[in-house]
Amino acid sequence: MSQQPSAVIIGVGPERGLGATLAKHCAAKGLHVYIAGRSEEKLLQVVNRIVENGGQATSVVADATQEYDINHLFDVIHFDGAALELAVYNVDSNIPAPILETQAETFTRLWQQNCLGAFLFGKEVIECMLPNKQGTLIFTGATASLRAKPPFTAFASAKAALRSLAQGLAREFSPAGIHVVHAIIDGVINGDRAAQQFPDYYQSKGEEGMLNLEAIAETYWSMHCQHPSAWTHELDLRPFKEPF
Amino acid sequence: MSQQPSAVIIGVGPERGLGATLAKHCAAKGLHVYIAGRSEEKLLQVVNRIVENGGQATSVVADATQEYDINHLFDVIHFDGAALELAVYNVDSNIPAPILETQAETFTRLWQQNCLGAFLFGKEVIECMLPNKQGTLIFTGATASLRAKPPFTAFASAKAALRSLAQGLAREFSPAGIHVVHAIIDGVINGDRAAQQFPDYYQSKGEEGMLNLEAIAETYWSMHCQHPSAWTHELDLRPFKEPF
Amino acid sequence: MSQQPSAVIIGVGPERGLGATLAKHCAAKGLHVYIAGRSEEKLLQVVNRIVENGGQATSVVADATQEYDINHLFDVIHFDGAALELAVYNVDSNIPAPILETQAETFTRLWQQNCLGAFLFGKEVIECMLPNKQGTLIFTGATASLRAKPPFTAFASAKAALRSLAQGLAREFSPAGIHVVHAIIDGVINGDRAAQQFPDYYQSKGEEGMLNLEAIAETYWSMHCQHPSAWTHELDLRPFKEPF
Amino acid sequence: MSQQPSAVIIGVGPERGLGATLAKHCAAKGLHVYIAGRSEEKLLQVVNRIVENGGQATSVVADATQEYDINHLFDVIHFDGAALELAVYNVDSNIPAPILETQAETFTRLWQQNCLGAFLFGKEVIECMLPNKQGTLIFTGATASLRAKPPFTAFASAKAALRSLAQGLAREFSPAGIHVVHAIIDGVINGDRAAQQFPDYYQSKGEEGMLNLEAIAETYWSMHCQHPSAWTHELDLRPFKEPF
Repeated sequence: MSQQPSAVIIGVGPERGLGATLAKHCAAKGLHVYIAGRSEEKLLQVVNRIVENGGQATSVVADATQEYDINHLFDVIHFDGAALELAVYNVDSNIPAPILETQAETFTRLWQQNCLGAFLFGKEVIECMLPNKQGTLIFTGATASLRAKPPFTAFASAKAALRSLAQGLAREFSPAGIHVVHAIIDGVINGDRAAQQFPDYYQSKGEEGMLNLEAIAETYWSMHCQHPSAWTHELDLRPFKEPF
Repeated sequence: MSQQPSAVIIGVGPERGLGATLAKHCAAKGLHVYIAGRSEEKLLQVVNRIVENGGQATSVVADATQEYDINHLFDVIHFDGAALELAVYNVDSNIPAPILETQAETFTRLWQQNCLGAFLFGKEVIECMLPNKQGTLIFTGATASLRAKPPFTAFASAKAALRSLAQGLAREFSPAGIHVVHAIIDGVINGDRAAQQFPDYYQSKGEEGMLNLEAIAETYWSMHCQHPSAWTHELDLRPFKEPF
Repeated sequence: MSQQPSAVIIGVGPERGLGATLAKHCAAKGLHVYIAGRSEEKLLQVVNRIVENGGQATSVVADATQEYDINHLFDVIHFDGAALELAVYNVDSNIPAPILETQAETFTRLWQQNCLGAFLFGKEVIECMLPNKQGTLIFTGATASLRAKPPFTAFASAKAALRSLAQGLAREFSPAGIHVVHAIIDGVINGDRAAQQFPDYYQSKGEEGMLNLEAIAETYWSMHCQHPSAWTHELDLRPFKEPF
Repeated sequence: MSQQPSAVIIGVGPERGLGATLAKHCAAKGLHVYIAGRSEEKLLQVVNRIVENGGQATSVVADATQEYDINHLFDVIHFDGAALELAVYNVDSNIPAPILETQAETFTRLWQQNCLGAFLFGKEVIECMLPNKQGTLIFTGATASLRAKPPFTAFASAKAALRSLAQGLAREFSPAGIHVVHAIIDGVINGDRAAQQFPDYYQSKGEEGMLNLEAIAETYWSMHCQHPSAWTHELDLRPFKEPF
């Protein structure tokens, strides 16, 4: 059993994305990184990049909304005897639509991806960390976590559910040494996802109008490094140019 | 086709409960009341009481989380040619538990009952009301809508999702004339449910420490009567003795 | 000593204003109304109108920020032996400006008018109501009570201070029977003040885009009528067309 | 003219206090530190400690609520030609009391210390930083910034006013490159102030139940180091054992 200091990040997609950036950041800090996501190809690219840079990483294909997949991910972590220090739930799924055009299936799917997966993942993380009475669990939130604006109502409802879950976990497990953080990303992340999904919007924002991937990773890491006597449970992150 | 002024209330259970009280209140104000819930027996008791008092009511057995049931409920309403003026989503389901003892199924069920059902119901209500450009849609929230305290984390997450949904609906449909209200019930309702589920707690609160059913109904009704130039979208309701 | 059921409203200005409308509404409900404001002329117009309509009113010239004036107002009320049932702090002062162009004197004056006056008035109201263990105390808030947007930062800071004060008073005195309400007016009131101060903006809103005076008064009155088992401490009020 | 990288911290008292700790932290990072407070003796102790450790510091006796004193502080900074990078408003004044026992003078004084001083200081800081289009301005908030609980109503009202001010400043000056942060200290700081003012409470909390001074300083510094593409405007800080 290695007891190797490790991190697990779920919601890892394209290399120029938040999940991948967090993974590379943690690996550069010396943690073995377990990365999970739905695309094996994308995961392998990230693993390769980490290994090229001298880090250690393991990929596990997983759909965060499937309890079986989450259990499998943590079976791998337990089997390795990893000492889990940091966990990030970075799944973020959004399908803007007027409510009357939103199907129950879509409404449910958004909740499953933004909240149910966080519940499944969070429980496993906490079970892992409790024996050592330490560890950091970060959830990636959004502007919509705080307010629902059409056509993002379904997304907002799911993100509000996540925020409340994170708050409940913080209240329940902080005294046991688990640091739970809800990070509200208020703006567009300068990564492949926005570039591909909303190319015009992406262009209009410009580099100064979007959140830099590495900058977010720095703050996530600084949350992980906080002394337990002064823990942050919620913070916002936005580009200096972002109106709010 | 009658075009009879009507109300629909889902989440109607025991006669000394909020759903039943709202139904009786609306009937006394002259509305035909459609009441829905899972227990045919309880629904019939409420219908009988309303009819005894000279009102009009129709019961429809329905599980709010089932799209088929919700569709059926509104088929009945449409078939009658009812002019829907007021709708209340009063389903409220809570299973307190530490997170590590909460199963995914329970977590999902609470969300389905407190939020998904509200989405299904809300959509049908709005479709009904839009042609007339008027109507009131009220969602019953709870203390937990605003903050998650263990062992109510799963409930809080679901209620936060509902609150956000209500806010999004208000933003989307107010300009079209639909008045959406989120009512935060902060405290114990003096009804059969608390009396049976938490008899000791119920006793300890005493009559002055609990929300009176008819008092809540009065405020719901006053929301319905607001002039569109000054609509309330969120308000709290608590006993004067309730610490908050 | 009369023990006549009474209301006191401070922040009464032009007849087509919220203070005056609340006063007329309370008088029509049978309360003797004490109205206070800085302009004797405007107060007398309101008193005359109330008396013409068969009501009873007393005017007291008072600057809400002056302890002496507030004391004087309540000396009049005590001397009459009035049974104070309802009190409204309706002073609302706003001077939009970029922060670097805002003088300390202006910043202080806005706080005095929006918050300090509420503290002075609130204390006297509570002293009056405590012996009877009942009464309603309403504070008029604004959109800015919840968030600070330039050029309304100074106003927002003062209104946030008022909101917090109202919350503290509600927590301290609800158990003693005093119903404290913070009403968030989110939008433009359709009265003389907006018409004169921002005529273009006023025109652009149109009647449907502004809060109707009597509609606000109806809701304030419904708050006063709430049963103590289900009190509202905060609610918002906005025109159905108002984006939020 | 030196253009020496500098910080200014107002609200510096005992050496085992947050102001002094922030000052030592900034000095250790290489900034010339301007410290301000009401006690010359305490300021000199902090300056001496910083100089002993190889840092640079200047003390200016100032009452944060006096415009003259604030102007004088910034005259000193301007005269030195300092390049102001970081500014902290750390004044925190609290006098718990039931509202009916709170005098207008006390209510006003708390607002002046917690909010008016922040306005005066903030304006000068922003004027200093605007030409360079960069700099960090941090305000120290408290649990009470978010809610008013008796007997802390006056304090809460003042802190809510500060929070709103900080939000307005962030909205107005972020696009100009000024990073404004509102840090909510939720708990007891393990310093001389609590030890002396509430010795029993201090003892009961124990070391694990209080915020460590250096831990807070670390987080303040990490806020200062954030990349402008991902700025935090509000965060909370509390001991892992603190219920919330």
